[in-house]
Amino acid sequence: MLLVLTDEDIVPLLDMRDLIPLMEEFLRARDSGHTVTPPRHSVEFAPFGKLVFTIGGLKTGARALAGFRVYDTFPGPDDEFDAQTVAVWDSKRGSLLGLIVGWVLGEWRTGALGGVAIKHMSRPDARRCAVLGTGGQARTQLLAAAACRSLTEVRVYSRDPQHRRAFAAELATLIKGDVQPTASAQEAVEHADLVICATSSKTPVLETKWLCPGAHINALGPKMLNEHELPTDIAERITLLATDSIEQANGYPEPHFLAASAAWNHLQDLATLVAKPVPPRLGGDITLFSSCGLAGTEVLAAAHLLERYRLARQGSIHASAG
Amino acid sequence: MLLVLTDEDIVPLLDMRDLIPLMEEFLRARDSGHTVTPPRHSVEFAPFGKLVFTIGGLKTGARALAGFRVYDTFPGPDDEFDAQTVAVWDSKRGSLLGLIVGWVLGEWRTGALGGVAIKHMSRPDARRCAVLGTGGQARTQLLAAAACRSLTEVRVYSRDPQHRRAFAAELATLIKGDVQPTASAQEAVEHADLVICATSSKTPVLETKWLCPGAHINALGPKMLNEHELPTDIAERITLLATDSIEQANGYPEPHFLAASAAWNHLQDLATLVAKPVPPRLGGDITLFSSCGLAGTEVLAAAHLLERYRLARQGSIHASAG
Repeated sequence: MLLVLTDEDIVPLLDMRDLIPLMEEFLRARDSGHTVTPPRHSVEFAPFGKLVFTIGGLKTGARALAGFRVYDTFPGPDDEFDAQTVAVWDSKRGSLLGLIVGWVLGEWRTGALGGVAIKHMSRPDARRCAVLGTGGQARTQLLAAAACRSLTEVRVYSRDPQHRRAFAAELATLIKGDVQPTASAQEAVEHADLVICATSSKTPVLETKWLCPGAHINALGPKMLNEHELPTDIAERITLLATDSIEQANGYPEPHFLAASAAWNHLQDLATLVAKPVPPRLGGDITLFSSCGLAGTEVLAAAHLLERYRLARQGSIHASAG
Repeated sequence: MLLVLTDEDIVPLLDMRDLIPLMEEFLRARDSGHTVTPPRHSVEFAPFGKLVFTIGGLKTGARALAGFRVYDTFPGPDDEFDAQTVAVWDSKRGSLLGLIVGWVLGEWRTGALGGVAIKHMSRPDARRCAVLGTGGQARTQLLAAAACRSLTEVRVYSRDPQHRRAFAAELATLIKGDVQPTASAQEAVEHADLVICATSSKTPVLETKWLCPGAHINALGPKMLNEHELPTDIAERITLLATDSIEQANGYPEPHFLAASAAWNHLQDLATLVAKPVPPRLGGDITLFSSCGLAGTEVLAAAHLLERYRLARQGSIHASAG
């Protein structure tokens, strides 16, 4: 029987300590030319919205996976009937391994990719973290940051005081650390070694001059020329600009907000930074990871979770039989 | 909870008397410009094969549906883990209505489209039917033909005598009629008003001179310039050539085997024939429907089956409560 899992099934199995190395495995395979990662494919159903597909996979010694994630941009509440669906095949054996229907998988794999960026781009001694935004992406980015760096201080800002208080309380428990809400974005950013920018803002939410020397930024929100959450003049400060998907960064309907900057000429593939690590940064330069969503990564994450689910179920069957 | 159905769930609900009018509804919507029917989208996962997506939907007064069917061309047996998946959204409300995972839905909607072609292209007095091929497509094409015309005689040929005998016995029961295996394709075709050509043959399985005056052909199998189950000289005999998807007919990696013929210049969209019916044919001319697979039709068929399943379940809950 085909395995179809929902958020309820996979939430107990999600762990950044598994997912971050898994994303590194994918990125190393990508660097060796063993992944399939085309830009998103979308089909318009006017006037309601689109279906958007990220289709991809990888082939390494042990694994040959193919699959896709699909989501819609139709109106309506984000409820159980507005879920994203991920499907995974073992492409070598020709088997559909299963489906995962829900919301959390996409956020966790994006979080894990953000963790990889922090691990390979930020200073090893980064301790203080700013989080702008309190949605699902902000949550998984912070979980990933906490899995890669020894955070001593996390400051959270979003426009709604209630949201930032609730986020701070929940995340303090999850990362077993100090997470405080702040009354302004500046208060959060100006003390931070790591800045997680995960808003839906179409205009800049921080000023470049607030950034500490040596800071690293993970940017998740709007990044188009006409709508972007980071200021364009950030390009003048950054010495390393990377993305998980150069195909996707160049594949949006609008240009990337930094595409016209000199920094864009040196845009790095995160896969290269993982496969060919450079000595750790210790200087005061500023680095930016622009998260675009690398096709195929959700397929590998889903395959891992389907496998963990099967093993956990077998374990519980054995336990109850024993 | 999201509804995920398998073949076992939907087989009891499949009925050509529902599906043929449903496909006509789709084709009328298409003729009015209210459907989304791009050619297939496929992504290569070398060296194993592809994932192939048909994405589509429709918008009429009562319905706004979007969705897709996906299948793989990876090696491996056609088993429960090599299934096709269809997903359906109500695009107006933004709800994922459900998924159907299996094999039969694709074959039944292709059958129903073949039924529409027979209804609108063949002579109303067509009685004798030839079937070349004994697979799932041959089966549903014959079920659809029997739903549209009063068949008095069905002759079935395929290379394997056991396959044609088993097919004849099964279909005789299903259509409650006379279905006989024949020892050659010619014996089946030379007496037929309707010819269903549903083989996987890469070379012609019939000769044009075998065709009766007035015959109509539904062709399902290979139709590329370098691999085709019908002879190219059939173009000289046909006075009406139609397909369900002109987009797809022109969207294959290779040209259609008739694309260089004069008949191709008059290629009709089945949607036009449904929306603007012409007087029934009574002469001796020969007509051909080349089935290419119209995107979105499986989405409408799936929405119908999900709804029927819900109603049947509600009915049985009420019955057991009563």
